[in-house]
Amino acid sequence: MKKVAVGVDIGGTNSAYGLVDEQGNILSEGVFPTRNFPDSDLYIEELYIGIQNLLKTAGEEYELIGVGIGAPNGNFYKGTIEFAPNLPWKGTVNLVEKMKRFFPTLPVIVTNDANAAAVGEMVYGGARGMKDFLVVTLGTGLGSGFVANGQLIYGHDGFAGELGHVTVSHTGRVCGCGRKGCLETYVSATGIKRTIFKLMADSIEDSEFRHVTFTDLTAEMITKAALNGDPLAIEAYEYTGMLLGRALADAVSITSPEAIFLFGGLAKAGKYIFEPTKKYMEMNMMPIFRNKVKLLPSGIDGKNAAVLGASALAWQHVQNKG
Amino acid sequence: MKKVAVGVDIGGTNSAYGLVDEQGNILSEGVFPTRNFPDSDLYIEELYIGIQNLLKTAGEEYELIGVGIGAPNGNFYKGTIEFAPNLPWKGTVNLVEKMKRFFPTLPVIVTNDANAAAVGEMVYGGARGMKDFLVVTLGTGLGSGFVANGQLIYGHDGFAGELGHVTVSHTGRVCGCGRKGCLETYVSATGIKRTIFKLMADSIEDSEFRHVTFTDLTAEMITKAALNGDPLAIEAYEYTGMLLGRALADAVSITSPEAIFLFGGLAKAGKYIFEPTKKYMEMNMMPIFRNKVKLLPSGIDGKNAAVLGASALAWQHVQNKG
Repeated sequence: MKKVAVGVDIGGTNSAYGLVDEQGNILSEGVFPTRNFPDSDLYIEELYIGIQNLLKTAGEEYELIGVGIGAPNGNFYKGTIEFAPNLPWKGTVNLVEKMKRFFPTLPVIVTNDANAAAVGEMVYGGARGMKDFLVVTLGTGLGSGFVANGQLIYGHDGFAGELGHVTVSHTGRVCGCGRKGCLETYVSATGIKRTIFKLMADSIEDSEFRHVTFTDLTAEMITKAALNGDPLAIEAYEYTGMLLGRALADAVSITSPEAIFLFGGLAKAGKYIFEPTKKYMEMNMMPIFRNKVKLLPSGIDGKNAAVLGASALAWQHVQNKG
Repeated sequence: MKKVAVGVDIGGTNSAYGLVDEQGNILSEGVFPTRNFPDSDLYIEELYIGIQNLLKTAGEEYELIGVGIGAPNGNFYKGTIEFAPNLPWKGTVNLVEKMKRFFPTLPVIVTNDANAAAVGEMVYGGARGMKDFLVVTLGTGLGSGFVANGQLIYGHDGFAGELGHVTVSHTGRVCGCGRKGCLETYVSATGIKRTIFKLMADSIEDSEFRHVTFTDLTAEMITKAALNGDPLAIEAYEYTGMLLGRALADAVSITSPEAIFLFGGLAKAGKYIFEPTKKYMEMNMMPIFRNKVKLLPSGIDGKNAAVLGASALAWQHVQNKG
């Protein structure tokens, strides 16, 4: 019987899940809107039914080895989601406990989405064989997963890896976390939108964005504009890369990784994000670390990277036990 | 036969060494001036003779289990000291190789002084039983050792833990590493001296330091002056604690430690350094981490803390093998 893990990516809008084999092939998958289930018990039921359907409609019989779940504010130690602002559930949800009602004998592992991406990179992606690396997820916010000595750093409370909340400027942009100047207010899909609006305020340069509302603007539009030579779009990417590069230089001083992987929407801007990030990272790096650390695109980045990353949690758990 | 480890602390001025039992008792110790041995082979010979003398003059017979060495720019993986600006040897010194000539059957472990302090804290000190913590050494510079999942983070190249070289201000004070605005140019014994001189330049406040040269000024004098109510000394500690607190808040975002230990000269200023550091750390912390992380004085800090920390490397090595 073929062994498969379930990977679940809980997002603010949709939840995606899939059956993944040990080689990282997604054998089948499903999706449903997270927001339609403000009752977390009904949500888990819907997820269970979806997984059962995948198993039933499979051409062959599968043996489930475990369930891995990536979720905003997911806590590895407690198996909970705690106070996730973009999810429909208030307070703390005991995700593992609820899943165990349906899968009493399987390991169920929860962590935040960026940590899941890092484990995915280690199990299936570009970090195979690496013991010290860092994954930075550039989505609506900025997430990160640090691996040292071959192990993910969960920290004492299970919430480590919040690189998006190191402070760039103590008088900087207001952040959703309640503080000011967090890295993710500059370096993320939302951050670069804010930068475009700042540049429109400061300069008199013409730009196609002068006809676009903040709500309508997307990071993809900024990438496309940069490709077309829009000066504000190019400047916005340069600025984003400068702040990311500086933050990565500091992170390297602490954990000295072999490689840093950029994952998610903004990483798809290719040279517009990689070139300035690399330039400012090296420029601000302590001399002993210079020209040592690889800056790479994620090796699992794609439509289902988050499901893949989540399933890797289950595969890693089983491998560590074996 | 009583088992003992050798701990060696290689400093720019002196080298201290001692025999340490598994409980962290220093049974005997010696010291000699590092600077008198610009030839690293003669240095190692002197060290070997010193250790032999300790063994000979001991009241009982000891069984050596290993040698641990803490040194500036010590590299755990390579067993080398590389380009240490304050040591008399140029380039790379193969410390483990040279020691192995005298101790061919013993494990010899090298790391930098701050990492040795962190291992010491874990083996003998306040971090016993902790899996995630951070030691910050406040001496001439600022060193750090990060422990995650019960293991020291050496990083890919063995040079991780350079918290002293995260950037506080990109237009800030010139650092010995060749860059500007590194944390240790503000937060260290040298850093607080520089702050006193900055405050004397900016203000017209009277201070006992207006009669002292930069060369003569020490961190101990600043602590004493703070105790006597010198306004510049108090302000200098507040400023130092603010910058340290902010940097620790950022470090917590990354590794989420259970505790942070302050070790070394400046940590002896007690409330003058702990109070502002704690205040600004909490103030700048991401809400999910607030009031969770203990800020503590080192549990091994004392005259021989560095020797103790170095010996812990050997004990830890033996315990991990066992």
